[in-house]
Amino acid sequence: MKIIQIINGPNLNLLGRREPGVYGSRSFEDYLKELRLRYPDVQLDYFQSNCEGELINCIHACGFEADGIILNAGAYTHTSVALHDAIRAVTAPVIEVHISNVHQREEFRHRSLISAACRGVICGFGLDSYRLAVEALL
Amino acid sequence: MKIIQIINGPNLNLLGRREPGVYGSRSFEDYLKELRLRYPDVQLDYFQSNCEGELINCIHACGFEADGIILNAGAYTHTSVALHDAIRAVTAPVIEVHISNVHQREEFRHRSLISAACRGVICGFGLDSYRLAVEALL
Amino acid sequence: MKIIQIINGPNLNLLGRREPGVYGSRSFEDYLKELRLRYPDVQLDYFQSNCEGELINCIHACGFEADGIILNAGAYTHTSVALHDAIRAVTAPVIEVHISNVHQREEFRHRSLISAACRGVICGFGLDSYRLAVEALL
Amino acid sequence: MKIIQIINGPNLNLLGRREPGVYGSRSFEDYLKELRLRYPDVQLDYFQSNCEGELINCIHACGFEADGIILNAGAYTHTSVALHDAIRAVTAPVIEVHISNVHQREEFRHRSLISAACRGVICGFGLDSYRLAVEALL
Amino acid sequence: MKIIQIINGPNLNLLGRREPGVYGSRSFEDYLKELRLRYPDVQLDYFQSNCEGELINCIHACGFEADGIILNAGAYTHTSVALHDAIRAVTAPVIEVHISNVHQREEFRHRSLISAACRGVICGFGLDSYRLAVEALL
Amino acid sequence: MKIIQIINGPNLNLLGRREPGVYGSRSFEDYLKELRLRYPDVQLDYFQSNCEGELINCIHACGFEADGIILNAGAYTHTSVALHDAIRAVTAPVIEVHISNVHQREEFRHRSLISAACRGVICGFGLDSYRLAVEALL
Amino acid sequence: MKIIQIINGPNLNLLGRREPGVYGSRSFEDYLKELRLRYPDVQLDYFQSNCEGELINCIHACGFEADGIILNAGAYTHTSVALHDAIRAVTAPVIEVHISNVHQREEFRHRSLISAACRGVICGFGLDSYRLAVEALL
Amino acid sequence: MKIIQIINGPNLNLLGRREPGVYGSRSFEDYLKELRLRYPDVQLDYFQSNCEGELINCIHACGFEADGIILNAGAYTHTSVALHDAIRAVTAPVIEVHISNVHQREEFRHRSLISAACRGVICGFGLDSYRLAVEALL
Amino acid sequence: MKIIQIINGPNLNLLGRREPGVYGSRSFEDYLKELRLRYPDVQLDYFQSNCEGELINCIHACGFEADGIILNAGAYTHTSVALHDAIRAVTAPVIEVHISNVHQREEFRHRSLISAACRGVICGFGLDSYRLAVEALL
Amino acid sequence: MKIIQIINGPNLNLLGRREPGVYGSRSFEDYLKELRLRYPDVQLDYFQSNCEGELINCIHACGFEADGIILNAGAYTHTSVALHDAIRAVTAPVIEVHISNVHQREEFRHRSLISAACRGVICGFGLDSYRLAVEALL
Amino acid sequence: MKIIQIINGPNLNLLGRREPGVYGSRSFEDYLKELRLRYPDVQLDYFQSNCEGELINCIHACGFEADGIILNAGAYTHTSVALHDAIRAVTAPVIEVHISNVHQREEFRHRSLISAACRGVICGFGLDSYRLAVEALL
Amino acid sequence: MKIIQIINGPNLNLLGRREPGVYGSRSFEDYLKELRLRYPDVQLDYFQSNCEGELINCIHACGFEADGIILNAGAYTHTSVALHDAIRAVTAPVIEVHISNVHQREEFRHRSLISAACRGVICGFGLDSYRLAVEALL
Repeated sequence: MKIIQIINGPNLNLLGRREPGVYGSRSFEDYLKELRLRYPDVQLDYFQSNCEGELINCIHACGFEADGIILNAGAYTHTSVALHDAIRAVTAPVIEVHISNVHQREEFRHRSLISAACRGVICGFGLDSYRLAVEALL
Repeated sequence: MKIIQIINGPNLNLLGRREPGVYGSRSFEDYLKELRLRYPDVQLDYFQSNCEGELINCIHACGFEADGIILNAGAYTHTSVALHDAIRAVTAPVIEVHISNVHQREEFRHRSLISAACRGVICGFGLDSYRLAVEALL
Repeated sequence: MKIIQIINGPNLNLLGRREPGVYGSRSFEDYLKELRLRYPDVQLDYFQSNCEGELINCIHACGFEADGIILNAGAYTHTSVALHDAIRAVTAPVIEVHISNVHQREEFRHRSLISAACRGVICGFGLDSYRLAVEALL
Repeated sequence: MKIIQIINGPNLNLLGRREPGVYGSRSFEDYLKELRLRYPDVQLDYFQSNCEGELINCIHACGFEADGIILNAGAYTHTSVALHDAIRAVTAPVIEVHISNVHQREEFRHRSLISAACRGVICGFGLDSYRLAVEALL
Repeated sequence: MKIIQIINGPNLNLLGRREPGVYGSRSFEDYLKELRLRYPDVQLDYFQSNCEGELINCIHACGFEADGIILNAGAYTHTSVALHDAIRAVTAPVIEVHISNVHQREEFRHRSLISAACRGVICGFGLDSYRLAVEALL
Repeated sequence: MKIIQIINGPNLNLLGRREPGVYGSRSFEDYLKELRLRYPDVQLDYFQSNCEGELINCIHACGFEADGIILNAGAYTHTSVALHDAIRAVTAPVIEVHISNVHQREEFRHRSLISAACRGVICGFGLDSYRLAVEALL
Repeated sequence: MKIIQIINGPNLNLLGRREPGVYGSRSFEDYLKELRLRYPDVQLDYFQSNCEGELINCIHACGFEADGIILNAGAYTHTSVALHDAIRAVTAPVIEVHISNVHQREEFRHRSLISAACRGVICGFGLDSYRLAVEALL
Repeated sequence: MKIIQIINGPNLNLLGRREPGVYGSRSFEDYLKELRLRYPDVQLDYFQSNCEGELINCIHACGFEADGIILNAGAYTHTSVALHDAIRAVTAPVIEVHISNVHQREEFRHRSLISAACRGVICGFGLDSYRLAVEALL
Repeated sequence: MKIIQIINGPNLNLLGRREPGVYGSRSFEDYLKELRLRYPDVQLDYFQSNCEGELINCIHACGFEADGIILNAGAYTHTSVALHDAIRAVTAPVIEVHISNVHQREEFRHRSLISAACRGVICGFGLDSYRLAVEALL
Repeated sequence: MKIIQIINGPNLNLLGRREPGVYGSRSFEDYLKELRLRYPDVQLDYFQSNCEGELINCIHACGFEADGIILNAGAYTHTSVALHDAIRAVTAPVIEVHISNVHQREEFRHRSLISAACRGVICGFGLDSYRLAVEALL
Repeated sequence: MKIIQIINGPNLNLLGRREPGVYGSRSFEDYLKELRLRYPDVQLDYFQSNCEGELINCIHACGFEADGIILNAGAYTHTSVALHDAIRAVTAPVIEVHISNVHQREEFRHRSLISAACRGVICGFGLDSYRLAVEALL
Repeated sequence: MKIIQIINGPNLNLLGRREPGVYGSRSFEDYLKELRLRYPDVQLDYFQSNCEGELINCIHACGFEADGIILNAGAYTHTSVALHDAIRAVTAPVIEVHISNVHQREEFRHRSLISAACRGVICGFGLDSYRLAVEALL
């Protein structure tokens, strides 16, 4: 059985509640249930934190065993060299996902500091971005 | 009774001890007592942390109920897109305050990543900046 | 009795008439009456001009006697080194105010050339920004 | 009868005398006579000043009644946020004109701070730029 | 009889169908008929292509005989040094036109690589920009 | 039956032959056969050109009828405002794909001029990027 | 008898009173007397204004007759394209002077927009800069 | 017998006719005859196009068989990432040539996007640049 | 007995495991033992965290008593203004160390936000950088 | 008797021979004779070198005894931090002079790395710049 | 008999010994012998120095008599305005050569400060770049 | 016996005499005596020059035999690509040292052009920086 770790960064705990026009009105937990049903043969682990350091801890903890990591680093995408280093430090392939098309938003969201350390990037498909990332890892 | 949450960011726990020439020699706790006496009809809650993620957690926790948030994000003012997002994600109005006039200091303190998400900005009046922010919220 | 000089820069004579979505629909004269009633012990002098040089003249004229200056330099905020010099040249403390939160508007309004010469900055509270500045000076 | 206000900015009073290689050798007053003859049904008002603030005053004075404003802001085109705001503050459509093709001159003349506030831009046709602007307003 | 060549660049074949809020809802062919009626003494030739190279070919083909060229280079305005060179290479005067006021749109549309090679620029008057260009050439 | 148009830009005709270390050693035609077998209910149309203008023509031709467009604009991704406009001009959703992780390559490949006009972006999964785009459109 | 026009820009009316550490403690009028005594054969006219437009007016008024102009444009040195144009428009040679060495002060004082239009530049010699400029003109 | 492909980009078909002060007054065809006489043992193929895509097609067509390519990409030198990729994709060595010394011209001609993909660069020797490139390939 | 606090930032807990080509294959704990043996008269305290805030907490906790701090802030070196402030806020001298020569790596690692607040910098000597820092503090 | 050291930098040995349109057609030695006659009470020492290091050596040699140094650093003005340091290291006042008005020439001549270390700057008066510098030192 | 001066700048004395992967393993003296044999009718003078000033001296010494100068300024290519001036000051045509293709190396080697002063540029052909330069001069 | 070459760049001959607040009041020769006593088993050679080229000569002369080079390039640190190349060209490890913490000084001293070519960097420890470099080499 394959293990895929999903990691959500800052403010994504408010999903469904925060700016629904940009991020949709569904909570991530709700979506996760559906995703697990769709992929019964995959163990989908989930972690969320608003702390950059805890996201790094999580990448360290699973990054040498998991078959893949799906990382939505939220706003840390644009400012964190430390996450970049954590991704490069582990052996599991990491896929960067975004719910919205960040290129249609403010200029400071156009630059990603972590893309260069990731295997690939998927952005703009709403919550469906996570499913496409699972597909890509399988 | 109105509820106003005051949030102080990194290094502000050292107030009174750290670079008194820039920040003054009085501790924030001491000042807070005076402020509470001045506004007996307002519940002034207080939180300080050096961790960006805990500041975000605090904004989430009070940001849908408080009547206002007074945020001195310290150095994270200049580097945190995640705080910007947290402020935009909640419904309470947030006022950005600074003790010193950041525009008279180093160039990297002139840019604020959170101003655009806040209701207003007050800077340069010493600890009195907090009182003016309370005034603005009432 | 304290003397506070309020100085308004270009286009602020149109207040109430110009882009009400940004600046509100009330004229400054109307607001000033209310402000004077609220602070009967303060002499609130008022001057408005669309000319950069006349604003400098006014700062020179009152800047060695007034107890404080409240300056909304309007668009000159972003382009005038001469106002910066005038503020530094006088002895009265000058407070920079803005009606709107300039950080939520066009990029060229994010940079202030005069902040570094002022005592403090208050922006984003509508006309109430002026009252907060009076509070700060008292 | 339609009213069109022509406003000329700094140094344009020297037209015909100043750098004829760039601006031609005819005075604006001379050209204006011809223009008025050509459009007998239009009231062509004219104002020139070297002071940024007086140009703003003029835009305020006619900008709520005139059917259109033709503005050659001269060098203020490249430095004045205050004129940008004045144009946006009034209801009459404003057309930016230039006698020379500013894009063929020094780099600092390539950027216009007022174009974004104007209805349209016409540049490079000598004094004929003014006639084309009248055409565009009719 | 004067010959004026009108050249339209990429995506202008969709005029009337593409983003009507920005470009209006009328096709260029429709407008061209009207323009020809208005100027019976002028031969108005028309060419459109989405290929940068074909636009250059067209400028070469007519640029030594036509009495003037009206060029709306569309998006190539902002990226094509080759068009700049083509315009400079021919002897007919070229007028750059734009339907919308490009200065009110995205930042990458503010820079024109071809303006410096053109006789003049007209932008922001809707389809009427073409008529003003004909006026300017006559 | 759904119609999806795949459009490949410059140099992608050399796939399998060009820099196999970066792009893999399989031709696109070969991969396309497999993709069509996998999605028998989808009509997968294919077009490749090295000409920017022909890519625009193709987007125009199918962009009002197809259920989706998968666009690998190759090097034009980084320089073409005209493709950006073409994507915005049509009604079909367009997905930007890249075979390699462009963020791990030269700096000039980090900026995409078309992302802001696309629905979403998928990059870095080799030829599998195309399959994920089909998934996203279904 | 030679005529030399001295023109002082914004805030220089406060000389002797304003930041004496930077500009010295002597008024300009006082210095001017001494200068006139030193050069009895030269008519030294003097004008000061805080208004950019009035400085331009003065340059126009004397710039076709005077044997030379000594211009200390103060803060307008760094922001005024209009003064640049005025200097170029007249025939008298203009010498740019500064009391302080502007290169030892804030970065925004290092760039002069008017130097390129002037004959020469003299800066950093205190009030003696004016005498050297008179020497240069004779 | 060695095969060398000469490829000329946009506007070079006008050689001899276009800005003779910069590019000389001789047509390329005329020069090519002379060059073929000078190197009787070399097959000198020639192609010119104003279309970026056709230049890429030509590089693809000959780039796996020719002994060398001499490429004057004209204005596309400064804007085309796609040509950069085409050059890197083929196996024949490509030499970038320019007739004029591009470093003595406008700033936007100083940057070459294709140099990094070429074997070497020769510029500034008039039409003789092509002969030197043939020398370099032999 | 002297007290020196060694503080390691993000991802340095993976030392010996993470990119051995850059950081070597030895764990920090192992190296620390050797260092303690070498300096028996120095109390070498050690703290590591992936959280920016906890690093600040640690600097606060020891920064008023320790005789020196050796700080390898890892990736936070390049992004953290808050660490800069923490270093400036305490009285113990802080030495910035890096295992690798950061100037030989990616451009974003060339800029340090904390160097200006530190006593000195030592970088590029592998783990030996820490020993040199101990030497410098003694 | 006062001692003033004149130091000329690279290419100034060619004065009178090099680009006479910019620098005039008189040799410096010739001019120096005249200058010495004019100031019989001043010992005017002279040194020229094309080597940055020898200019520094000369500043060191005379910089603690001379009453003043007149330095025309030529092109090193724009590139030499080492000269800046040498000027700051000595006690004699140093005056930067230029023959031409560098602000009217190429952009890379507009920035001076040494102005901030000098007492004052005189530029644009031809060889007369040296005489004005002597005047300033007396 | 024609006289051509070859001038090599810093570190080129180590040719054959220094980074052979970039510069080849042959000494310049060795290559020079061959070059002289090939052009018996040309007097090929040679000079090398690591000192910027001595390179300038050499250009002055031969630059009014030689028929041409071949200059490989090495690293000074990217930093020396003084060499630029020296080249412009003399009458002999100067050809800039580089052994490696500098555009494929570090970014700071992409900019040449001397190209604009040279007749032409040849780079990337190994030592053969010198022979091509001789060809170009003949 | 190990050989270490110490090389000091421009203005360091004035050590003890130049800006003692920044560099201390002790001469380097004095310090060198002490250093030699401390390391009797090391041959510490010393060279100082104000000429960039002589520093390069010295690196060449010792760089293939010495066991290490300690280089304080002074101001050339920030401007010399040629020193960068010299360091890379030799086989001895080179350590960059600075007496002061350059990051606390002017912005133009924050960038080092030679760090990327050196083994490591030590800065900010006064003259002790040299001893630490000796330690690092042993």
